[in-house]
Amino acid sequence: MTETVEKQIVTPYNVSGLVDYNKLVKDFNAELLTQEQIARIGAITHKEPHMWLRRGLFFCHRDINAVLDDVEKGNKIYLYTGRGPSSDALHLGHLIPFIFTKYLQDAFDCQLVVQLTDDEKYLWKPVTIADTEKYAIENIKDIIASGLNPKKTFIFTDYTYMERMYPVVTKIQSRVTFNQVKGIFGFQPHHNLGKISFPAIQAAPAFPESFPHLFGKQKIRCLIPCAIDQDPYFRMTRDHAESLGAYKPSLIMSKFFPALQGSMGKMSASDPNSAIYLIDTPQQIADKINNHAYCSVQDIKEFKKNGTNVDDDVPYQYLRFFLNDDQQLEKIKNDYESAQMMPQDVKNILIHQLQELVMNHQIERQKVTDEVIKHFMEIRKPEVQ
Amino acid sequence: MTETVEKQIVTPYNVSGLVDYNKLVKDFNAELLTQEQIARIGAITHKEPHMWLRRGLFFCHRDINAVLDDVEKGNKIYLYTGRGPSSDALHLGHLIPFIFTKYLQDAFDCQLVVQLTDDEKYLWKPVTIADTEKYAIENIKDIIASGLNPKKTFIFTDYTYMERMYPVVTKIQSRVTFNQVKGIFGFQPHHNLGKISFPAIQAAPAFPESFPHLFGKQKIRCLIPCAIDQDPYFRMTRDHAESLGAYKPSLIMSKFFPALQGSMGKMSASDPNSAIYLIDTPQQIADKINNHAYCSVQDIKEFKKNGTNVDDDVPYQYLRFFLNDDQQLEKIKNDYESAQMMPQDVKNILIHQLQELVMNHQIERQKVTDEVIKHFMEIRKPEVQ
Repeated sequence: MTETVEKQIVTPYNVSGLVDYNKLVKDFNAELLTQEQIARIGAITHKEPHMWLRRGLFFCHRDINAVLDDVEKGNKIYLYTGRGPSSDALHLGHLIPFIFTKYLQDAFDCQLVVQLTDDEKYLWKPVTIADTEKYAIENIKDIIASGLNPKKTFIFTDYTYMERMYPVVTKIQSRVTFNQVKGIFGFQPHHNLGKISFPAIQAAPAFPESFPHLFGKQKIRCLIPCAIDQDPYFRMTRDHAESLGAYKPSLIMSKFFPALQGSMGKMSASDPNSAIYLIDTPQQIADKINNHAYCSVQDIKEFKKNGTNVDDDVPYQYLRFFLNDDQQLEKIKNDYESAQMMPQDVKNILIHQLQELVMNHQIERQKVTDEVIKHFMEIRKPEVQ
Repeated sequence: MTETVEKQIVTPYNVSGLVDYNKLVKDFNAELLTQEQIARIGAITHKEPHMWLRRGLFFCHRDINAVLDDVEKGNKIYLYTGRGPSSDALHLGHLIPFIFTKYLQDAFDCQLVVQLTDDEKYLWKPVTIADTEKYAIENIKDIIASGLNPKKTFIFTDYTYMERMYPVVTKIQSRVTFNQVKGIFGFQPHHNLGKISFPAIQAAPAFPESFPHLFGKQKIRCLIPCAIDQDPYFRMTRDHAESLGAYKPSLIMSKFFPALQGSMGKMSASDPNSAIYLIDTPQQIADKINNHAYCSVQDIKEFKKNGTNVDDDVPYQYLRFFLNDDQQLEKIKNDYESAQMMPQDVKNILIHQLQELVMNHQIERQKVTDEVIKHFMEIRKPEVQ
């Protein structure tokens, strides 16, 4: 290795290098969530802030105060999140935004729209449109299984919903130049037109005008929970929102969920041992954690003497995502770092947590019938105002 | 004037300079229609070839033989034409492709699809989407009034039909790069994404796959009647047709209908005296021809002595478009060129022809009720197989 400084690259299409989140927030000109803001979310929603807020995993934002002000005044807001349906089997990392979105939907008791960008996957991957539509339906089952409110959630795919979104898409496309998407996303003149114009399609659901059946002509604020790599889309969206007569969408953004091999960016769907999948059996989960999760303890003698640091210990980092009890987590950290707890004990706690999470998910997913999917995807007025 | 050579520019967005049609056909790598091909059209359709074919006004093509071969074998074909709805009032030039399309539809007894690119107009002109939708409906009345077969014509706007076309649109967009549309249409990096990606939207109806309700999964050939400035769209389309499992669309293309002031390109909607509008009264038609049509006779003494040349005489050129009787037209040409017929006599014949054409159009347009429009725009199986 002659390179000593690893370059940090984070776009919706590429995450590589060791991610310095503070630098990223500064580069993107977003803002870190403050303790005051997290406390205010708790106060306004009469709910303890989600553990991922408390632990800095959803850690930065754009204009979150505007959302909180609106909610405090009794104004309606809505949530928008989405997913690019790339393969049949989702892993834990894919579930993060939906688990958090469910929390936000319950906490704010609000409408949610979920976009499946099947067109994006067709444009970027060597798959047919029929494939992407099949993936989308499979992914929608997992999304629904994460517990979204059936009365306040509208799920759609771009291929089935384009007609209603298309006016907003063209409004955005008319305001954004090739030079701009080149600057934001790194698109080049040899890229195809679909890729080049796609950002407008991901931007469109951030405008209530894209959902006349839900919002009519109301001007209401949109909050987007997502991983930080999606920020470039919404920076672009925010630049043009006001000229479309809409509020700039607010964002609440997460760090990446680490791969089993460690924190170098996002998990990879191409390596089955880099992730826990939502279809894994309890035995597979145990085997993956035991055999493939990167452990900060590489030498037991050394560990027993000096302890360890959990910052890049995957079993502990996974527990930060999935162990709800703050005190228990803190105790594990202290005991583990001081070598009073063995790596296998930490792994065992994690295995138990993940087995329970994945089993529960599989049970919920079984309940998602074609009828349930149809209900979530139906274009109709909201059931609850 | 220091420039002695006028540059010829013909793109869908710009027609300027004196058009040298032979050079254009060569530049575009299209082919001139031959007398044999025109005779073959007559033989296959058991109809006299349209006067615009006989007179070289629809004058060039791409792959017309493939269409004629298919028709001869009893295979189905379909026609595709369209219009960008830019303003409420159409002029005579706008009617040309629809009059010719009606002839082709009757002659080949085939299905026709008509695209109204309301999105294009929104992207290029300072109008709202609501404006373009209003223009589209007004234009559709004129299109229907040109006599299209209600049992075999499907008319749609991009804003109302995008959902069904969108898979084909993305298939095309995935195959065309920014560099390619830059080369074909002259798009620049400072152009907006809507313009840059629009060519795929005009290309989509050239694929039967865009109309599952009409063609199911049939692989059938598409013939596009249009003015030659639209050729760049379909050159691009043809480059990618086979990779989409479709035939390359065939084209039959016209020269431009001249402005009243002369043959320098297309008529301009911005100068009301440059064109005869379909809403003009008989008196307005007479006044425009008498006062604004460019006459090759500028000096009566000189004319009486040496005659004239009708090549740039607008009244005569308009008669080539609208006087059906070949012999009468030939006689007018001879008499006029040899000064046996006065310019005003030619104008009077033209005024009579245009008054009749426009009055008939207005009568037919009156009959186009909302019900009729609905019938043409309905997504349903074809009434006649």
